[in-house]
Amino acid sequence: MTTQEHVGTERAELLAEADKRTLIHPHSVIGAPAEPLVLDRGEGAVVWDVNGKSYIDGTCGLWQCPVGHGRDELAAAAAEQMGRLEFYSSFGDYSNEPAIRLAERLLELAPPNMRRVFLTNGGSEGNETAIKLARLAHHHAGNPERFVILAREGGYHGMGGGSLAATGIDRLREGYGPLMPGIEFLAKPHSVRGADVTDRLVGELEERIAEIGPERIAAFIGEPVLGVGGMVPPPEDYWPRVQDVLRRHGILLVVDEVVTAFGRIGHWFGSARYGIEPDLIVTAKGLTSGYIPMGAVLAGERVLDLADGAAFLHGFTYNGHPVGSAVALANIGVLEREGLLERAETLGARLLAALKPLERLDRVLEVRGVGMMLGVELTGPDAATAAAGVQAGARADGVIVRASGTTIVLSPPLVIDEGRLDTLARVLTEHVTAA
Amino acid sequence: MTTQEHVGTERAELLAEADKRTLIHPHSVIGAPAEPLVLDRGEGAVVWDVNGKSYIDGTCGLWQCPVGHGRDELAAAAAEQMGRLEFYSSFGDYSNEPAIRLAERLLELAPPNMRRVFLTNGGSEGNETAIKLARLAHHHAGNPERFVILAREGGYHGMGGGSLAATGIDRLREGYGPLMPGIEFLAKPHSVRGADVTDRLVGELEERIAEIGPERIAAFIGEPVLGVGGMVPPPEDYWPRVQDVLRRHGILLVVDEVVTAFGRIGHWFGSARYGIEPDLIVTAKGLTSGYIPMGAVLAGERVLDLADGAAFLHGFTYNGHPVGSAVALANIGVLEREGLLERAETLGARLLAALKPLERLDRVLEVRGVGMMLGVELTGPDAATAAAGVQAGARADGVIVRASGTTIVLSPPLVIDEGRLDTLARVLTEHVTAA
Repeated sequence: MTTQEHVGTERAELLAEADKRTLIHPHSVIGAPAEPLVLDRGEGAVVWDVNGKSYIDGTCGLWQCPVGHGRDELAAAAAEQMGRLEFYSSFGDYSNEPAIRLAERLLELAPPNMRRVFLTNGGSEGNETAIKLARLAHHHAGNPERFVILAREGGYHGMGGGSLAATGIDRLREGYGPLMPGIEFLAKPHSVRGADVTDRLVGELEERIAEIGPERIAAFIGEPVLGVGGMVPPPEDYWPRVQDVLRRHGILLVVDEVVTAFGRIGHWFGSARYGIEPDLIVTAKGLTSGYIPMGAVLAGERVLDLADGAAFLHGFTYNGHPVGSAVALANIGVLEREGLLERAETLGARLLAALKPLERLDRVLEVRGVGMMLGVELTGPDAATAAAGVQAGARADGVIVRASGTTIVLSPPLVIDEGRLDTLARVLTEHVTAA
Repeated sequence: MTTQEHVGTERAELLAEADKRTLIHPHSVIGAPAEPLVLDRGEGAVVWDVNGKSYIDGTCGLWQCPVGHGRDELAAAAAEQMGRLEFYSSFGDYSNEPAIRLAERLLELAPPNMRRVFLTNGGSEGNETAIKLARLAHHHAGNPERFVILAREGGYHGMGGGSLAATGIDRLREGYGPLMPGIEFLAKPHSVRGADVTDRLVGELEERIAEIGPERIAAFIGEPVLGVGGMVPPPEDYWPRVQDVLRRHGILLVVDEVVTAFGRIGHWFGSARYGIEPDLIVTAKGLTSGYIPMGAVLAGERVLDLADGAAFLHGFTYNGHPVGSAVALANIGVLEREGLLERAETLGARLLAALKPLERLDRVLEVRGVGMMLGVELTGPDAATAAAGVQAGARADGVIVRASGTTIVLSPPLVIDEGRLDTLARVLTEHVTAA
């Protein structure tokens, strides 16, 4: 062992010890810290740990980095803005140039009826904001009893008090109640379950609206493609038919695009891919590629008309952050300049084709995906354990994937090269085959 | 008018127009955008707008910048980390060095019984996290009915579903309900209301606990010094007596130090100033001086013992952000190196002494403060309007203060020089006198 290696090993051990002694990680067991994987640097689609081992990043962290790791353009944009005005609140009439420029840019890229932007610090905040604004709009329009939010089993909207209440994954809710009331859940839209799936889902939607009473329902919230719920693209006719029903009943449509926006499924906004005309769009992650925490909520005509003249007494300290806005603008520039939206479609099709043969295995229920959002769903009574095993095995072989329940989820950076994409597919195939 | 000035004016006008056309600001009226004040750069305790006009920053934005604006050290820390590893999730076993170093550092600075750190992206997220962890702890310990949170009128804990539910300011809650249930409010602790104030507040606390049943109460949440509620320092014996009652009943104490930590009242944590021994501490703002959105929740022995072995299925994407952590470490370094905690006490005393004579005015109910957290509370039926007028008048004269209800609140950067501090006091005095 050379001195250099010794120093490296010692550093790694000291960091691991300090991690276990001091941190509570999200999604960890209190009092039983895991042996950490301490990451040290990143470049493109690759990250390295403190021992120097490299990993192909098959998940983009938590799906947040379409432009990949270690982009100098984004670091430069952050440094430049931080040297000028690092931050000032945008509450009330305070503003700053990057926030204004970003709002303009987002409205240029957004679906046609989007009119205003509320800048946030992440996806949970965005969904809290959207739920509050939808309720306020009806309240202000003289319908204070119109507060129910329709959400879906398998939907994931965040971990705050409102966003968790709208999240349809039981294990994430247990122990935290009572949660915010006024949320009603519909069935998970799942393409694998037969040809009449949209008929059944739309039928259920109509029935539930009749039961609850449309005059009590403020909004419907959904991800264009379920993310944490297992990377589930909906049937092609699902969204147009759902939104027809909603519009007929005056129910606002909140589209949670925290995962799908900014190229992940080949468009600036996933709504464009599925013909959705949202009243509110929630974004985060890909907006800054995660270099700085940031999100944005876009509001359309209908909600703005309902809320016209209402005091929106809502906001988080860092909303409209100038550095985050500058980074977001640089990030959008990279996505555009490097053609990464188109690349998501090409690479996604390549990855899906490479993994599709796994469906021949008894262990595999479905291989599915749209753009660079893919899932390999396992089956069997121990499917979740098997998925966790695949995650661990692939990582030992230098490939990061993520087990989300019974599904292995994939969302590589859009800058990944074909060679690494094929390696990812090969390693994953080996571990799923052995699962 | 020179060309340069013309370009400046034109830029200002274009930005103002774009702001009004594209953004929804926090705390604004939907459909009626205000003429924005577009800030352009900052240095120390001064910010400049796009017209080149300078302002003494008497509020530190939203109280978030103890080290002042435009600090090169913080920008350099951000740039360095962004060039190495801009971000990776810390969910599960993923970790990074800056997050680990920051957790270690925070535990060195924290009150004695703090044991673990959960890194967040801001104060609302922190309070959501603390409420969830307090409930989970009792749930895991076999008391799922122990979910009630005691909060206080005038308390401000954030704008998410749980943090808003615990916020005791009615105007901030209206139109968003139904909010998360299980919150019970106690009276606002207010020093101006007579000598027996602690007796009355502690008596009320005992009564309410008896009414609700201690076996149903998870936690008490409070700011050491009410912030948005009007910068109200509690009576000196308030916290020790409150925590005695809570401990006797096994009720956890969540201390919201989003404003008070990192030097604002002369200590790393305001808990040290008031002899508080928290079970959970929530911080944000001063942790990074706002250069990057970040916060931290510190957990103590009691809550960790209750939750021992519980799966904490909670987390926001950007938790444990390496760039935020690197900036926080640099920020703490500046606070320490420049003796800013001591400076908060010296300057705060100077500012309080300069403003105290305002109490002679009929218009002024109280001038109060601790460290660099001060409030001038107005009185009379139009007090809130008068406070807003003082805010506007001072700003026209190049001084930023903030009207929070009927109180003018002050929290300048701790790096402000005596000359500017005296100017702030003089301008504020003029406008309060004329109010």
